[in-house]
Amino acid sequence: MTSIVRLVAIQCSLPNLHDNTGDIDRIRKNVIRKGFYPLRVPLECVADLSVNARRAHFQGVAVVNDMGDHYELIGFESGPPPILTGMALDLGTTHLEASLVDLATGEVLGSAHRPNDQIEFGTDILTRIHFSATPDGLQILQKRVIATINSLAGDLARGCDLPLTDIKALSVSGNTTMMHFLLGLDPATLCREPYIPVVNSLDTLHACQLRLDIHPLAPVWIMPSVGSYFGGDLISGILASGMDTGSETTMLIDVGTNAEVVLGNKDWLIACAGAAGPALEGGIARMGMRAGPGAVEKVWIDAETSQIAYTTIDGEKPKGLCGSGIIDLAASLYLAQIIDVRGKFNPERGGASLSETADGLSFTLVADHHGDKGRPVVFSQLDLDAMMRSKAAMYAILTTLINQVGVGFADLDTIYVAGSFGKHINPKSAITLGMLPDLPLKVFKPIGNSSLDGAVKVLVDQKSRKRSLELPKEITYLELNVNHDFMIRFSGARFIPHTDPSLFPSVPIFES
Amino acid sequence: MTSIVRLVAIQCSLPNLHDNTGDIDRIRKNVIRKGFYPLRVPLECVADLSVNARRAHFQGVAVVNDMGDHYELIGFESGPPPILTGMALDLGTTHLEASLVDLATGEVLGSAHRPNDQIEFGTDILTRIHFSATPDGLQILQKRVIATINSLAGDLARGCDLPLTDIKALSVSGNTTMMHFLLGLDPATLCREPYIPVVNSLDTLHACQLRLDIHPLAPVWIMPSVGSYFGGDLISGILASGMDTGSETTMLIDVGTNAEVVLGNKDWLIACAGAAGPALEGGIARMGMRAGPGAVEKVWIDAETSQIAYTTIDGEKPKGLCGSGIIDLAASLYLAQIIDVRGKFNPERGGASLSETADGLSFTLVADHHGDKGRPVVFSQLDLDAMMRSKAAMYAILTTLINQVGVGFADLDTIYVAGSFGKHINPKSAITLGMLPDLPLKVFKPIGNSSLDGAVKVLVDQKSRKRSLELPKEITYLELNVNHDFMIRFSGARFIPHTDPSLFPSVPIFES
Repeated sequence: MTSIVRLVAIQCSLPNLHDNTGDIDRIRKNVIRKGFYPLRVPLECVADLSVNARRAHFQGVAVVNDMGDHYELIGFESGPPPILTGMALDLGTTHLEASLVDLATGEVLGSAHRPNDQIEFGTDILTRIHFSATPDGLQILQKRVIATINSLAGDLARGCDLPLTDIKALSVSGNTTMMHFLLGLDPATLCREPYIPVVNSLDTLHACQLRLDIHPLAPVWIMPSVGSYFGGDLISGILASGMDTGSETTMLIDVGTNAEVVLGNKDWLIACAGAAGPALEGGIARMGMRAGPGAVEKVWIDAETSQIAYTTIDGEKPKGLCGSGIIDLAASLYLAQIIDVRGKFNPERGGASLSETADGLSFTLVADHHGDKGRPVVFSQLDLDAMMRSKAAMYAILTTLINQVGVGFADLDTIYVAGSFGKHINPKSAITLGMLPDLPLKVFKPIGNSSLDGAVKVLVDQKSRKRSLELPKEITYLELNVNHDFMIRFSGARFIPHTDPSLFPSVPIFES
Repeated sequence: MTSIVRLVAIQCSLPNLHDNTGDIDRIRKNVIRKGFYPLRVPLECVADLSVNARRAHFQGVAVVNDMGDHYELIGFESGPPPILTGMALDLGTTHLEASLVDLATGEVLGSAHRPNDQIEFGTDILTRIHFSATPDGLQILQKRVIATINSLAGDLARGCDLPLTDIKALSVSGNTTMMHFLLGLDPATLCREPYIPVVNSLDTLHACQLRLDIHPLAPVWIMPSVGSYFGGDLISGILASGMDTGSETTMLIDVGTNAEVVLGNKDWLIACAGAAGPALEGGIARMGMRAGPGAVEKVWIDAETSQIAYTTIDGEKPKGLCGSGIIDLAASLYLAQIIDVRGKFNPERGGASLSETADGLSFTLVADHHGDKGRPVVFSQLDLDAMMRSKAAMYAILTTLINQVGVGFADLDTIYVAGSFGKHINPKSAITLGMLPDLPLKVFKPIGNSSLDGAVKVLVDQKSRKRSLELPKEITYLELNVNHDFMIRFSGARFIPHTDPSLFPSVPIFES
């Protein structure tokens, strides 16, 4: 293991009249001899290091932080501590997910998640960026997210019966805006041409600099970003998938607040990102929710009888629709011809399930008496319109990217689909809607929360940390905000499955 | 100039859609290209760096700290600031002396000094070490010395009409105990066999870590020590004298709380230290005082008439005796045969100037009506005994050291004498007492406050900083506390000039 915090066995000669080297210099010399160079000793640690080393007669275990470009001697124990842990964090716009990792073995000891408390100041990231420009706005957002991270650390520590300060490292991957909020940096220029972050890559921090409750000198590894719309979460995704190590060209799709897509292999990587996610994300769509208990995730509609069937996550009473549920529902509605190729409800086919509401025609998936707390689950024309924009954006992103390098979809044997989107989505439904390309289903490989997995990797593996710093330099980033090709492709994708149905041979076309 | 804070001219290309590199990464790349690598950017600076760089359209001057093993980007200005200053500090047991240095030119802009406020908790260092072991003792001592440094910084800044935060660097040389107090480190083992410091060499700190009022990210360079009795002040002395660069063997004597002596040349250096100073230091001897206005510095006594003449520093009314005054007085008393070879007052020769007091026979140098505030200046047998111990220790230190390497005093063309001791002392008198070896007077070269001069050097010159880190490894330290040879030599030196008068051919011997 080459984890971010290392235990180094130390055997120093004892101080004597012929060797009056200072305590710290004595230990430092020994640690350097083991290959940890350059090595710094923070002033805060000096007194305790000296006391502990003397008590242990200079025989024991040194605790060494790997800070990237140097090492740090932060502790001395008479023997190896029973456990050495680090926290990996996926810092999402709507949700934070964390794992506690045994830094000696790489084993995940526990997991926890919490909603992002910043949501009070804006469900979407743009509203929060605007809020951050108000007096104290940025500080409030920073405090909120740090409080949430502290709560998560508390959850993890309690779960393993450890004191909080036993968490001795933290790695964070998140989108560029969330990173700015975490660091208290003004995100104003992220969403304005030419979309420049304050910083892409930061030196390793200490937990105390962010007022975190874990060990104050725990190294905090912030996954670097490539640009405003390509965050450290996607660098984590690349690390987790390993797509940058093989000679085969693969694609990685991560749908969160944005759809972020990377294409490439060990020789080249190209990436782009666009706003394809919001309509699919919990908290944004009217009936949308996170992929948690009670979320409708699969839907079937009998094309003949219009009879509806669905499943919810954990089998709980239906509360709303997660991203995969929305896609499954929309695809089913299309196949049942309740919506047409333009993505509009067809009142003649919807029957009693369709009713006029303030949001236009709406489809009642779950009647109120079947819903959680007696509330129905309804999908309106407004929700549908948002979904159509998202699916069109997604397909436009994928095709723009793939055309940029002269590769065809058919050349891809693997498309990694990250996140809960990848975990729950039925690729068949996404293909039906023209959101994902019409490829054999086995091509689509869900890889779970790759943002979190990448964060775990950098905690335990030095090569991954080095790689994460190199990756941003190797990636060609395609800016879609000003891409004419993308705009054209977006328009073409605003039909089900597409204005050019020959791209989707497996999808039935219904003449309206 | 390769000063500890550097201004680096920067011209970055402007951010655009084809180069969306973050602000900090953009500047960092440019600074690294100028040779400042590895380069770190403290989180505290990131927001301001970005704002300032954008305002200046990424054309301007970067402020870069040289932290020893890495650089730090801490500021960005549209043009070079009018002045860039650093503070050099000699951290003495009784007194602190500081200079404000223009880091661009090396020019000393101003100087200031203040008594060490720790004196309230012990005039001598051993009393303070004991005090530091009482509850909160160490913290109190640390706070005191930091408050004094802040006051000095205020004096210097006011003197140059600068805000305190315009002081952008600090270098400190002091003895090992004072360094422990400054850093809040327990000095208990410094004065107990085997005399081990907590730390010899510390990484460069930031001013805020010590709660200093100068620029919070000012690098603080603490001159490393060799041992408990060989502090950073003497490393500074070596740097200031340049004795480590020539092929000629020279000696450096620094008398402060201890007498510290170095012998050597560019190929080898040997050093030792011992308690030879206290009797000569202001605040320790009954009538002793710092070499300041009103201190008697030179004394003549006519051997025939016993008539007394003296001068004071700045010609003010006599207040007491500084170290050089004590030596001059004792030598004159010996030559007038008012004290004998054993260092005892001879009542038969002293006449009316000698009177019996609680401290034994006492010599009135200045009658009350001539003294400052109507107080006499008196030199007692107790003071004389202390002086005899000091002078014996000094000569024993010098001979032990010189014999260790098989060099003779006659081989030395230069003996650097540091500090106010070197500035004010009459070497002839010191030779008469048998304190310094009987060599031509031109051999003795006063070099002023070399502790302060060395601190100035490390502020402005990178080679000196590197050298100060190498020197401790090159110096052979001779521990006198357990040295049998030293003990014998000490006994032999407790006569005036010595039990072996042939060592001092220029000094008259009076048979008692």
